[in-house]
Amino acid sequence: MSKKYTLGVDFGTLSGRAVIADTSDGRELASCTAEYAHAVIDEYLPSSGEKLPASWALEDPRDFLDTLKTVIPGVIREAGIDPRDIIGVGMDFTCSTFLPIRKDGTPLCFEDRFAKEKHAYCKLWKHHGAQKYADKINEIYKKRGDTWMDGNFSGKMSGEFFLPKVWETVECAPDVYRESDLFIEAADWVNFQLTGRLNRGYVISSIKECYHKADGTYVPKDFLEALNPSLSDLFEKKFAGDIVMPGKACGYVTKEASAIYGLPEGIPVAASMPDAHVGGLAIGLKNAGDMFGIFGTSNCYFLMSREYVQVPGIMGCVPDGIMPGYFSYESGLSCFGDHFAWAAEKICPADYAEEAKSLGISNLQLLIKKAAALNPGESGLLALDWWNGNRNILVNSELTGMLIGMSLQTKPEHIMRALIEATAFGTRIILDNFREHGIDINRFIAAGGVPRKDPFTMQLFSDVLGMPIEVSSTKQAGALGDAIHAAAVAGKAAGGYDSIDEAVEAMKVPVCAEYRPCAEAHKVYSKLYDEYRRLHDYFGRGENDVMAKLRQIHG
Amino acid sequence: MSKKYTLGVDFGTLSGRAVIADTSDGRELASCTAEYAHAVIDEYLPSSGEKLPASWALEDPRDFLDTLKTVIPGVIREAGIDPRDIIGVGMDFTCSTFLPIRKDGTPLCFEDRFAKEKHAYCKLWKHHGAQKYADKINEIYKKRGDTWMDGNFSGKMSGEFFLPKVWETVECAPDVYRESDLFIEAADWVNFQLTGRLNRGYVISSIKECYHKADGTYVPKDFLEALNPSLSDLFEKKFAGDIVMPGKACGYVTKEASAIYGLPEGIPVAASMPDAHVGGLAIGLKNAGDMFGIFGTSNCYFLMSREYVQVPGIMGCVPDGIMPGYFSYESGLSCFGDHFAWAAEKICPADYAEEAKSLGISNLQLLIKKAAALNPGESGLLALDWWNGNRNILVNSELTGMLIGMSLQTKPEHIMRALIEATAFGTRIILDNFREHGIDINRFIAAGGVPRKDPFTMQLFSDVLGMPIEVSSTKQAGALGDAIHAAAVAGKAAGGYDSIDEAVEAMKVPVCAEYRPCAEAHKVYSKLYDEYRRLHDYFGRGENDVMAKLRQIHG
Repeated sequence: MSKKYTLGVDFGTLSGRAVIADTSDGRELASCTAEYAHAVIDEYLPSSGEKLPASWALEDPRDFLDTLKTVIPGVIREAGIDPRDIIGVGMDFTCSTFLPIRKDGTPLCFEDRFAKEKHAYCKLWKHHGAQKYADKINEIYKKRGDTWMDGNFSGKMSGEFFLPKVWETVECAPDVYRESDLFIEAADWVNFQLTGRLNRGYVISSIKECYHKADGTYVPKDFLEALNPSLSDLFEKKFAGDIVMPGKACGYVTKEASAIYGLPEGIPVAASMPDAHVGGLAIGLKNAGDMFGIFGTSNCYFLMSREYVQVPGIMGCVPDGIMPGYFSYESGLSCFGDHFAWAAEKICPADYAEEAKSLGISNLQLLIKKAAALNPGESGLLALDWWNGNRNILVNSELTGMLIGMSLQTKPEHIMRALIEATAFGTRIILDNFREHGIDINRFIAAGGVPRKDPFTMQLFSDVLGMPIEVSSTKQAGALGDAIHAAAVAGKAAGGYDSIDEAVEAMKVPVCAEYRPCAEAHKVYSKLYDEYRRLHDYFGRGENDVMAKLRQIHG
Repeated sequence: MSKKYTLGVDFGTLSGRAVIADTSDGRELASCTAEYAHAVIDEYLPSSGEKLPASWALEDPRDFLDTLKTVIPGVIREAGIDPRDIIGVGMDFTCSTFLPIRKDGTPLCFEDRFAKEKHAYCKLWKHHGAQKYADKINEIYKKRGDTWMDGNFSGKMSGEFFLPKVWETVECAPDVYRESDLFIEAADWVNFQLTGRLNRGYVISSIKECYHKADGTYVPKDFLEALNPSLSDLFEKKFAGDIVMPGKACGYVTKEASAIYGLPEGIPVAASMPDAHVGGLAIGLKNAGDMFGIFGTSNCYFLMSREYVQVPGIMGCVPDGIMPGYFSYESGLSCFGDHFAWAAEKICPADYAEEAKSLGISNLQLLIKKAAALNPGESGLLALDWWNGNRNILVNSELTGMLIGMSLQTKPEHIMRALIEATAFGTRIILDNFREHGIDINRFIAAGGVPRKDPFTMQLFSDVLGMPIEVSSTKQAGALGDAIHAAAVAGKAAGGYDSIDEAVEAMKVPVCAEYRPCAEAHKVYSKLYDEYRRLHDYFGRGENDVMAKLRQIHG
């Protein structure tokens, strides 16, 4: 059989990126990126010039169509392969990013009547206009003593999830709600462009819409009714198609799509996936106890386990979310690189900036270089890494940062070091929390720019966690994960694989570095961690709620 | 009677400054300053090139002689007066700054044999080489259940005081100890240059050497013996002359001194004084409940009371220390301006530095300007102002700074605002501590560069304290206080006054501004103060000793 290929498309916040991978070894032949013309719509609605509220973040679905039309033909051309050797497609999306549509798939915002209506557009994952609705949902949930989101969301609805955003639409633009036949995740809507089917990916439904695999339910009808009577049949009436599990096809490339995008007609399109989950495949997540972290402005951590345990303070848990037969637990840090960018921008003095310039490096790089020259504990400082709230085991966005131990000798690199250490301590809190609830962690694989480029920070993480850290060489886990997913969906007969497991084994991206803990450093860090944990509990578990009080006084 | 004048000399850490004041109204006719040629000797001993330990700080007494020879004739010339109209002299010193001398007053370090011996030089007030001896003294004191320093030092010996520094000499340079006939405060040694007498000022002896006025004792003999047998007769053998009370003459200008310095022979020289106590006279401290603060890199606060109360956590208490008939309580902040200088130097970013430059102001001024534009509580931050330890009511140099409430929106001016607010909260802690122990505070007079130049910070202090803040216009409280002191010593018949009280009333420096509290701001600050106080107690009173632990880990 000739070489076979799969194509993955990763839809991010500002751009979409396609890759073509060789199904035999996962080698990436080419990639192609397109920026969204409208980027994030968070200041003015282009169609009307209307000023948007501060917490809003919309996208225009035209950008997703344009991206598909650019990156699919683009990456095929770039790879220089015969398109007939492409045996499957997979796509992922940052979510929950959804849009109201007609039965035929037309977004309401494409119609003249709704072109100037902001609620008719795609509400991006980081649209925070619905936070107050999320707060009310959590309040009512608690009052009723409900349990339906304990498993999926650890009992707490985020303002970034589907339900509060739709409730916002019902309250603020009832005609948009009434006129929309369906609400659909953008991930499923782009799959629809290729397949003509309005099916829905299981994992996104589970982690953002509260789909329960066991009985096929979402949110109880009487709960929806309590929010707003119009919402009561939301999931019955406004959701179409089937729920499709990972590794299954949500449809096949139609004749029309084949003509537009240059893909072979009839090849399978994998169930839509959230970016992080599918990225785990590219990184090589396969076994119980495997954990991976995507390090960025914030960090996402995923852990696979055979058993389901109710672990407090995690973001969510999906049965069969990454690999069939495993529960995937999600946790993370609300702030990682953002801390360091804050320090580089806000507290890097002029003489440091000059030094950085003369060395041809950024302020951030200089601060990290200076921080790296210190010994563990040498800064004399300890931080709580909550500059952007806490979404690991405390799950409280009102928490704020803390720094202790300053003297007149304290320098910016001491603060930088304390911030980096604090993110590692925050990570250890997550790992300890899993272990204390009986879930083993045997491997930790890190992906992202910092893991690949900053050996100091990775060594520090290994020293703090007291376990090896493997670094994945992947630069685009999402798109490659899609390609792996697509190979599993295509099947062995077509040149792919018969299971996700086999596809991952063959196509995963190799590890490019491994950091092993230094016993001496681990000992010092464990002392600091004891102090971190004590302050974490003191300020984070209600004993002293000064952080919330400062926010109240601030108003 | 023609106009009469007095002359004051204030010996600081880096320079000495003389003023001549009109005794009728305190008007300053002229001033003259001389920098010490050797400045603070804290890196290498000039005579030998020996590298000094990190915590050392010495001075060369030659600099004090040169200063006297420069500033006394200099200020007389500058004032353009007939020197015969000078009726008295007063001098003050930062202390405890003392030196080992021969019976005839010759410093041991002037002799060839000891010129290269670091222990033979003046140990400056901020010489911290003896800290471990202070720690041992406090340990033994506690173990013995002693009480002899409860009144003078609130039961805690500072490493900056006399005894630990002498003990260090005994242990490290026994020959210096053996060969020195006397140990004398630099303040008394400069008076000796004018009077030929080795008398000692009461206030310095009380606050630095633990002199007890009631029975004339210092440190119990058996305590000294427990430290080192050689020390047992320290106060009997190595101290000479009489203890002289404020307002009394420690001697009279000799013929020899008259020839050297151009002062009239026979005029009285006032008892030596510490800079801050005598400065209180210039500021106008007169009544029970009067408090004054000298705002600088650190702040000194003095409060006068008719009664003696054992107040925990103050620096010291001296009967008749400022004004006869009153107890003067001393407290303060270990860090005031140093906090702000730290922020301006260490965390002021390049774009701010550029903005400051374009406005023609310093980074510090820009940060304060931006901080001043915020409302109370708007920073969202709260700090514990312990960047240089705590010498107000916790008296623990191991305490360090804390900052809480940071978000990704936190800017340098928010941190600056929080630091300024924290110093005001720290001041309120001191005032509350006095009041809770039954000592009234009726007035607060502030002196120093910040009070004169920064209305924002003074208004903030008034708002936090909830009481008016008066600002003294004095720029050199020490030297003018000396002149007032000298006028009281000279007596009415000579053109001065018959009491310190009368001298103060006539010669004190006027108040140049008064800030009154804004009720609205006081309300917000009181909420923040409640949080400050809770964190103050949590981190400062042993419940969570993370600050000390971080120092230990730091090593």
